[in-house]
Amino acid sequence: MLLVSPVDEMISQRLADELAKVEDCFASELKSSLDCVNTLVSHVERYRGKRLRPLLVLVAAMAVSPDGQTLTKGHRVLATVVEMIHMATLVHDDILDEAQVRRGGQTVNSLRGNETAVMLGDYLISHSYHLCSSLGSQELAGLIASTTNVVCEGELLQLANRENWDLDEKTYFDIIDRKTASLCGVCGRVAALLHGCDLILQDAMDTYGRKLGQAFQIVDDLLDLTGSQATVGKTLGRDLQKGKLTLPLIHCRQVADDATRKTLLELLQAHTTEGTTPTLEQGIAIHDLLAKTQSVAYATRRAEQLINEAREALSNIPDSSARQLLMEMASAVLIRQS
Amino acid sequence: MLLVSPVDEMISQRLADELAKVEDCFASELKSSLDCVNTLVSHVERYRGKRLRPLLVLVAAMAVSPDGQTLTKGHRVLATVVEMIHMATLVHDDILDEAQVRRGGQTVNSLRGNETAVMLGDYLISHSYHLCSSLGSQELAGLIASTTNVVCEGELLQLANRENWDLDEKTYFDIIDRKTASLCGVCGRVAALLHGCDLILQDAMDTYGRKLGQAFQIVDDLLDLTGSQATVGKTLGRDLQKGKLTLPLIHCRQVADDATRKTLLELLQAHTTEGTTPTLEQGIAIHDLLAKTQSVAYATRRAEQLINEAREALSNIPDSSARQLLMEMASAVLIRQS
Repeated sequence: MLLVSPVDEMISQRLADELAKVEDCFASELKSSLDCVNTLVSHVERYRGKRLRPLLVLVAAMAVSPDGQTLTKGHRVLATVVEMIHMATLVHDDILDEAQVRRGGQTVNSLRGNETAVMLGDYLISHSYHLCSSLGSQELAGLIASTTNVVCEGELLQLANRENWDLDEKTYFDIIDRKTASLCGVCGRVAALLHGCDLILQDAMDTYGRKLGQAFQIVDDLLDLTGSQATVGKTLGRDLQKGKLTLPLIHCRQVADDATRKTLLELLQAHTTEGTTPTLEQGIAIHDLLAKTQSVAYATRRAEQLINEAREALSNIPDSSARQLLMEMASAVLIRQS
Repeated sequence: MLLVSPVDEMISQRLADELAKVEDCFASELKSSLDCVNTLVSHVERYRGKRLRPLLVLVAAMAVSPDGQTLTKGHRVLATVVEMIHMATLVHDDILDEAQVRRGGQTVNSLRGNETAVMLGDYLISHSYHLCSSLGSQELAGLIASTTNVVCEGELLQLANRENWDLDEKTYFDIIDRKTASLCGVCGRVAALLHGCDLILQDAMDTYGRKLGQAFQIVDDLLDLTGSQATVGKTLGRDLQKGKLTLPLIHCRQVADDATRKTLLELLQAHTTEGTTPTLEQGIAIHDLLAKTQSVAYATRRAEQLINEAREALSNIPDSSARQLLMEMASAVLIRQS
């Protein structure tokens, strides 16, 4: 369970009844006649965090409804579908991390090895489409599936750019837009579509979710680089270990003088060659370089810009407490510490 | 590319035009705007083997059509969907094998490591549902997704029974029915459904595919144990290495005397403890035990029974050359050497 910020906490409490229904739908869809499967599914519960994506569907749906507060059963189903897809990506993302955790001696049997993690992720993906098909809408099923196509492309693009120390900002944004923001965007879009909203409103809600998703990923990457492990609640420095260049490092490399760039490159290569997370000393050295080029501030500013754009996308939505919640959810992305 | 038996070869030739259309549909669905993705997809071509599942859809569709030879565009789409699902399972099944192959120094970069294989499999799964959603049928989408739910359950049940030397026949059949036969069964069912056939005919075609799929898996397991590596075209003895008990071994353990059972158990445990494929000597020792209890003959007989049941399921289908092909496809399962 990830730690949750006070704003997230407040939002989850306001939507507690709806989130409980989503949880019921989640559990009932995944229920198997096989005990071994049910045991594994119960492990997945530990991945449950902020529930950003189901909240995006639920609150967006309320905000675009005529009275600013109406949700349908279909919205709860869609909220469950996107959460299930997200869980599947977490389980699959975690596969190499699992191996690392085994080496460190922690929670060895939590998911019973890589092969089981692969199949459990597949089970979640399969059930997400199965649940989605229950809505009987070709348009919704097509939208969800084309979004997961794009999510996979984003992951593959990221893998293809491992240890690419020349990664540019454009490609970085392409990666995070596909792997993270596309699913957040579709949360807003399907919420509006299911209420029969026109394309302009669907696009607005897609933009809101997408910009928020981009900012969310930038902040996530920042936390991996600069966060406190106790607060974030997971191993940090993984991006460096995996040769994943994120926005502050890309900016630093772009604007640094030759000597700084050379030092940075040496520090980056050291981690991937050794396959280790940074030592305290190396971490401090990287942070010193980032401070020199004000690259953390730069990445934070980009996230802030995106959150402003997300909020602007709501400008034509009538005022309601749900719209206010969407505004707060956007702000919460910037102040989250986990 | 797996080696293909003369019967498979003949069937593929008869359906060559249709299979070419399925290949076009496959390639066009997977086409990405990202070069790195297209490169990976082209690697998947090496998994293309007998194309059993698309053939099941195509030939079953012809056999149940009023004139015994009609196929619709939707059938070609479904044939592509089931092949894409099958490819995804191959890519994901291959994940631990990949690691082994890397250790052996062969084809290291063929799929660029486990993580990429996971994401590429996900890309295939996602596109299979995306393609399926293009048919605009809630019933078909639901059937395909509930089948993949069951396939994943079968894989998870198999993983949960690794190194379970007490695995019984009932659980073995439950595993192969879910992981292999369910997809083959749905091939027949969707072929009939898309032609608007009644439930009786849908059930008959499901039974045909399902029994054929069970027999296919028994033969596949037999080949892993007794086949010639040069003919089968892949590393053999993997099931033993992975602690997977298959039908001949289950039978041998059931009927053997105490001394034979003890020897068998020791041989089985040796492989999984060491994580190796059998040496020639160990292989011969296992085959000697299986010969003593006539367990290969027993498994072959079970496969033959299932093929008879598959053929019987066609008894109410009017005679046509497509029906004749289904009969031959069933027989081909028993005589395949790869």
